[in-house]
Order: sequence, then C-alpha cells, then structure tokens
Amino acid sequence: MEKIVDETLVFGHKNPDTDSIMSSMVMANLENQLGNNARAVRLGNINKETEYVFNYLGIEKPEYIADIEDGQNVILVDHNEATQSADNLANAKVEKVVDHHTMNFVAPYQLYYRAEPVGCTATVLYKMYKEYDVEITKNIATMMLSAIVSDTLLFKSPTCTPEDKVIAEKLAKIAEVDITTYGTALLKAGTDLSEYTPEQIINIDSKLFEKDGKRFKIAQVNTADLDSIFKDKVYFEAAINDEIKKNNLDLYMFAATDILNSNSKIISLGNDSNVVEKAYGVTLDNNTALLENIVSRKKQMLPGILENLG
Amino acid sequence: MEKIVDETLVFGHKNPDTDSIMSSMVMANLENQLGNNARAVRLGNINKETEYVFNYLGIEKPEYIADIEDGQNVILVDHNEATQSADNLANAKVEKVVDHHTMNFVAPYQLYYRAEPVGCTATVLYKMYKEYDVEITKNIATMMLSAIVSDTLLFKSPTCTPEDKVIAEKLAKIAEVDITTYGTALLKAGTDLSEYTPEQIINIDSKLFEKDGKRFKIAQVNTADLDSIFKDKVYFEAAINDEIKKNNLDLYMFAATDILNSNSKIISLGNDSNVVEKAYGVTLDNNTALLENIVSRKKQMLPGILENLG
Repeated sequence: MEKIVDETLVFGHKNPDTDSIMSSMVMANLENQLGNNARAVRLGNINKETEYVFNYLGIEKPEYIADIEDGQNVILVDHNEATQSADNLANAKVEKVVDHHTMNFVAPYQLYYRAEPVGCTATVLYKMYKEYDVEITKNIATMMLSAIVSDTLLFKSPTCTPEDKVIAEKLAKIAEVDITTYGTALLKAGTDLSEYTPEQIINIDSKLFEKDGKRFKIAQVNTADLDSIFKDKVYFEAAINDEIKKNNLDLYMFAATDILNSNSKIISLGNDSNVVEKAYGVTLDNNTALLENIVSRKKQMLPGILENLG
Repeated sequence: MEKIVDETLVFGHKNPDTDSIMSSMVMANLENQLGNNARAVRLGNINKETEYVFNYLGIEKPEYIADIEDGQNVILVDHNEATQSADNLANAKVEKVVDHHTMNFVAPYQLYYRAEPVGCTATVLYKMYKEYDVEITKNIATMMLSAIVSDTLLFKSPTCTPEDKVIAEKLAKIAEVDITTYGTALLKAGTDLSEYTPEQIINIDSKLFEKDGKRFKIAQVNTADLDSIFKDKVYFEAAINDEIKKNNLDLYMFAATDILNSNSKIISLGNDSNVVEKAYGVTLDNNTALLENIVSRKKQMLPGILENLG
C-alpha cells in the first residue's frame, strides 16, 4: 500500500472484533467531521458477527492492510499494546489512542490519549462525539451500539458498566432498533461457525500476551451450542499445537463462550497449560475444563493467567 | 501519613511547578463536584511563582506528603512516568491520569487516562469541566489560568498551542484579571531567587530522565536577570556535582531561562556533559553555553539530549 502522508489511518487490534472494526470507522468519521483526513482500515478478517452489521447497514468494509509504512500517521482504537497492533507500529507516528484496555504504552512525544474503564471503546467515542458536538447519525449510532452489544455480550459480561448500558440505550433510539432483538441477532450471527475450519475458528479472535518473557495466546469464540464445537476437539488441538510451535508460545488457551448460559469451555495446551488449573480453580480433563460464569477474556480469563504464570 | 482507603490523593510531579500544584487542586475539586472523595497533596516544596497564586487567592496549600501507602488510590496530574512520581507508585492504585507529556505508562488494569498534546494540564482540565458541566468558579479559573501562564511562559513557549491561548482568555474573564498584567506579575514572582541557596535553586524544578540505562536531570529556573545567577556559577557547579554523585547521574543540565529575551543559559556537568554540544549546536565554555531561542525543557531541551545520549 502506498503511503499517503496527509492521511491518518485508523485501526483496531489484529484479529479484529466488532468493537475494533466499528470504532475505527466511528473514529475516522469523527476526525473527518472535525476536518482531519482520516480513514479506517483493518488488520485482519471481518468475523461473522461484524459481517452482520455490514449487511444490516449495507455499507462498505474498511480496506485490509497487511502492514503500515514508516512514518505513517495512525490512530489506534480498542488497543494500545504493540503486540496487538500493526507489525511495524514502532516506526509509525501514533497521533491518538482511544481505548478501554489495560495499558502498556510508550511515546517519546505528546499525543492525544483517551481511555476509560468502560466495557467498550465505542462508549468512549460516544462521549467524544458529544464533547465535540458532532452529529451521531443513524448509521454511526448502529455501529456504536453493535460494538457495545458485542463487547458486553448484551450487557451480561462483567466488563459492562452502567455507562455502557445508558449510552447503548440512547444509541438504540437513534438507530431505531430494539436492543434485545437487534443484539441477540448480532450475537447469534457471531456464533455461526459452520463455514470455518478449526484453524480459522481459533484465529477469529485470539490475542497474544507476554509476561516476563512468557508468551501466551487466549482465543475466544461465542457459541450457542458448546457440544457441537467440542465434537471437533481433536482438530482444534492439532490447530492449537501448530500455533504453539509456529509462534513459540508457552500456553494457548482456547475458550468457547456459551452466550446463553454465560459459561466458557476451554482447551489449554502448551508447556504451561496447567496454569489454568490454578487460575480458575479447575482440573483439566483431557486438556479441557468448564469455567462457570466466566465470559470475559479481559476481566476474568487474562488476570488469572497473569497471576499464575511464571 | 495514615492511609485513608476511601480517599483518593491527587498529585503532580516531584519538584512541583505551578501546573502540578494548581492542576492537582483543580482535579480534586472536579472529583469532589462529581461526588468522589479526593484531595490534592504535593510531592515537594512550593516555589515562589506558585506561592504568588496562593497569596493572590488567599487559599490554603495542599499538604506535603513524603510517600504514599501501599494500595492508596491516586490520581496523577501533569506527569505519568514513575521516575517523576511518588517513590512507591508501583504499589499504589492509579485511578486516573490527566497529563500533557510524553508517555511511559503501564497499568495491568483499566483506568481513566486523558492526555492531550497541549501546553498545560490545566487546558485539558478546562475541557473536562466543560464535558462534565461542572462550574468553573473565579478561584478555579485563576488557578487554571496561572498554570497555563506558567507552563507557556505567557504564551511565548513553543509548547503553547492555540487551544491553550483561547482557553486562557476565557479563564481570564472568569478570573477577572488582565492576562498580561497578572501573567507578568506571576512569572516575575518566580524569578525571585534571593532567598534560595544554589542547592535549593537547582532543585526548584528538576526532572530525572532515563534512557538506555543512562540517568540525567534537567533543572530549570526562570529569570529576568541571567547575569546575577551566573555570578554564583562556582556554587552551582558544586551543588550540581553533589547531585550527580548522590543520584548516580551521567549528566546534569541546569538551565536558567531568560523570560524576557526567551534564551536559556546552561551549566552542563557529568560524564556525558558534552552531549549538550551536539544536542544544541553549541560549544561549552567553562561548562556553560547560551541556548538561543530555547525555553522549553519538554519540546526543545529534552529531545536534543534524548537523540544524542548513549
């Protein structure tokens, strides 16, 4: 891709989820409305859930980029850590960050950084639209609402804050949708894994983390039918072991999250696979375990591993 | 100091300048107005310039604290790097950061982080008051205005942005002061070094930085009379050499900034003292040099050293 100096690229994390895709488009629109030349792009494939929003709105998807040029101006949304971002982020110029995650960020220059402890980046963006007095159109409202529904599992995730819910309700009015009807349809669309291979499923939404030199991935998919996923367990294990070798990982945890019953069933592999036993108070049975009432990677799965690894 | 669990302590960097002191008080007030229990404290002595604001307003100074307790909830203003903060920041819980500096920040949990590339923390706080619709009283406006005047050297520093100026003008109206009259009096108060020893002068506003294992300090004072400061050069050198030994520094640069002519005269000492020659295109004469049109530590002094050290 050719570098366009005056254009700022806006993107979310690799293996983008609905919040990363929608927030990049919503942020690019905010910049455009404020007179700045910005464009949303994406660092990975669009999943079935996010696809539902594009079909619903009938709008174009952001362009996929494999990499960014040195000196490219960028805006990060829904992430701030280099491990989750474009490969050569260190050579880009980060102008702004809008996020809602834990932080690990260094910049030897001043920039705009706005993060809040809420359930979704779009919730922060809603407040920025209000602050800059930029109109939230029906399409923009639908995008923001979709991001909040997705990140909070329709307000059922422990990551959901009262602010996410209040703002989602305001957005639903502008979007002219019933939250429960629209939200359930959106989440269910994301559970349709019928066209994916196990290799693809574990990469739909996986994030790489590092702690004290240890490298681990947590992959997550939503499902309304745990059993049908675990029928293919042996294929998932093969795919995961490939990933471990390829990426030199100490641990790979794949979590299938039951969005109806709010549990997650995991497969844990790698030299540090039994860290999950201590992390969640479970016993692995043939590499798997059921994590009751655990649905959030950020608030529930990740802290357990970070505390017990190393 | 006893830890009060429900109270959040708000503070700026060590060797606090006017922005650090005023922004901690302005932020604590914002939190209080929003129903949160917060209190401004300070990590160091109040300088003559900041003293002027307290005398002008006839209000109480924040309490000095030497250290914070483990688990203390804190809000950082006007800084984010651990080296410039309370010694045991790593054991505290940072709830929020409001800042306008370069970033080097890690938190293994979600938090509120707001930084903008403007000349002063108070400029960001003004926007937060507007966003939360909290009244800016005459006293609060005077505090914010003082911080902006101080950090931007009455809009003459290259760190000053159009936003700082526009907001300062709005604040001056609420504060019912003429910016130039008030601002000049404030800056001049800061140049009164008559009661300080050289040891004290170099510590009025010094910041510690680290790069690739090298440690250096840049100290800065404002003056309207360079000559009278450099009369005491030999005493400054002794004090600086003491600091270098005590803190194991590779470089100590002391800059006296002429607020009337917008130049800085420096003393540079330490094993890496001649890094400043490359950094600013000057030749040290008996450890000193005049840096023409250089007044900003953040935008002008620091980048030069970071580029050439190591």
